[in-house]
Amino acid sequence: MKLATLRSSSRDGQLVLVSRDLSKAVAVAHIAPTLQAALDDWSSLAPKLAEVAAALEQGGVKDSFSFDPARAMAPLPRAYHWVDGSAYVNHVELVRKARGAQMPESFWTDPLVYQGGSDDFLGARDDVPVPSEEYGIDLEGEVAVITDDVPMGTKREGAFDHIKLVMLVNDWSLRNLIPGELAKSFGFYQSKPATAFSPVAVTPDELGTSWAEAKVHLPLVVHVNGKPFGQPNAGVDMTFDFARLIEHITLTRNARAGTVLGSGTISNYDRSLGSACIAERRTLEQIEQGKPVTSFLKFGDSVRIEMFDPHGRSIFGAIEQKVVRR
Amino acid sequence: MKLATLRSSSRDGQLVLVSRDLSKAVAVAHIAPTLQAALDDWSSLAPKLAEVAAALEQGGVKDSFSFDPARAMAPLPRAYHWVDGSAYVNHVELVRKARGAQMPESFWTDPLVYQGGSDDFLGARDDVPVPSEEYGIDLEGEVAVITDDVPMGTKREGAFDHIKLVMLVNDWSLRNLIPGELAKSFGFYQSKPATAFSPVAVTPDELGTSWAEAKVHLPLVVHVNGKPFGQPNAGVDMTFDFARLIEHITLTRNARAGTVLGSGTISNYDRSLGSACIAERRTLEQIEQGKPVTSFLKFGDSVRIEMFDPHGRSIFGAIEQKVVRR
Repeated sequence: MKLATLRSSSRDGQLVLVSRDLSKAVAVAHIAPTLQAALDDWSSLAPKLAEVAAALEQGGVKDSFSFDPARAMAPLPRAYHWVDGSAYVNHVELVRKARGAQMPESFWTDPLVYQGGSDDFLGARDDVPVPSEEYGIDLEGEVAVITDDVPMGTKREGAFDHIKLVMLVNDWSLRNLIPGELAKSFGFYQSKPATAFSPVAVTPDELGTSWAEAKVHLPLVVHVNGKPFGQPNAGVDMTFDFARLIEHITLTRNARAGTVLGSGTISNYDRSLGSACIAERRTLEQIEQGKPVTSFLKFGDSVRIEMFDPHGRSIFGAIEQKVVRR
Repeated sequence: MKLATLRSSSRDGQLVLVSRDLSKAVAVAHIAPTLQAALDDWSSLAPKLAEVAAALEQGGVKDSFSFDPARAMAPLPRAYHWVDGSAYVNHVELVRKARGAQMPESFWTDPLVYQGGSDDFLGARDDVPVPSEEYGIDLEGEVAVITDDVPMGTKREGAFDHIKLVMLVNDWSLRNLIPGELAKSFGFYQSKPATAFSPVAVTPDELGTSWAEAKVHLPLVVHVNGKPFGQPNAGVDMTFDFARLIEHITLTRNARAGTVLGSGTISNYDRSLGSACIAERRTLEQIEQGKPVTSFLKFGDSVRIEMFDPHGRSIFGAIEQKVVRR
């Protein structure tokens, strides 16, 4: 099934089920008013939601209405836990290579994650307010999963079943603020403004055979200002699958229901597929041409991120945002 | 007024008002079921809560009951935003000095913060489960504030009024996991297990003249295994007050209602006052005696953190926890 959160008078919006083709929606307040409420009690509520989803698919729901992605907030408009991996290690290796730094061998076996801000997520069509173009505004196209309660000490083998939903992410970054923050060694904060998510989150079964081994085996299609920018495959060169990332994040903590776990910027060794962030393209330009050519985003620039099934149908709806001056 | 969250059938517990002397409580579900709900609509709900608090103080509430801190969850059992500063820069300077590293001059003017995990906060009397003593289990005694909605771009001058509540923190740390994580430069994750909070959060006016310039001017009294460990004054040597920290965290983001902002480990230049974490004491031992003497915590060890008003009355109740094997 596919779920979305529509803007309402509540900060957490209103949970709706969305048809597979993203054309119709139906409110499910009688089952769960919000996606967080559904996740808090997923094992008992998911079957009830699935019943309504099946009826919606068959045209058997009388209160359905047109689904408008412009009305969608992030599936979780605010979350209690947002942790982003950097699972495409070839991307990390590349960035380091460009600045002449060696990447520790352990990066291939020990996942890299950062704790992100989760109180103010952006909807798929929300503008992206930034105080200054000088900050180096960049997109980062990713896949994320949402879990139920995952106890501390969960191993990879036990992690698969905790993955309840999948969605797309634009993990906005302010590149020129990153070096200063990394030098302080406490991680990202000012360099990571609000993160945006696809209009719809889907259960893994909606991905069919494209969901395997806790990876999404499909290209992420990225456009910048209407032009193709990259379409790396999320299932290729993902060094750590989501189950392995869950093992990593629960070594010393419980991950509670509604944990949003990101893959990190998708990146393939096959450079002909382009990139899912400007920083990577600039790095390649640096290596190949001696200097970066593509500039970071300016106010008014737009980004579109989408993923299609093998029949060309949009799975999650598009993240389609414009950068604006705060 | 003083607020607490009691364990209930809900993950978010039940909001109660607590009398100034911490002896009595009363449920306020008719005003707000949870602290997050109160914070989401603070300007209209706080006056109603204050009315009940006043009646409770005067013995004019008929459904009051004894307040038992053992029943208290963290005031926000889960939060959308937990960001911890490192506002006592002398502590950072000291730690760097011990390892022979220079601290950049900018640390005195540019605050250091990290984004923490907020989906699984511990109550003041909850055991602290850790998988291994080898991780280097340490306390960190701090003060934290909770804000309402703070818009991006808020300056220090405009930040004071956004501070709605104050509480105590034990920001548990796993010291031996920190060097590896800092080397990866993405910040803390596995090295920061669940954070614990005092039984009660209070409005700044409860602190009287001890709340001034967005600092709490009182000693934080720390005991380890029943013995005095330190009592540094939270108002002394705090390089960045909470209003300045709010300016820092809203440069590129909104901080939404219920943001929990910590001071970082309290630390005074006057070393006779002891420390609020073991790492600092070990650093002083390193400098003075050539090697650290005090060991990190073992399973079964206990920590007590409390703060008293000038008349010796506990303001927030005590954080009183035992470390256990997960």
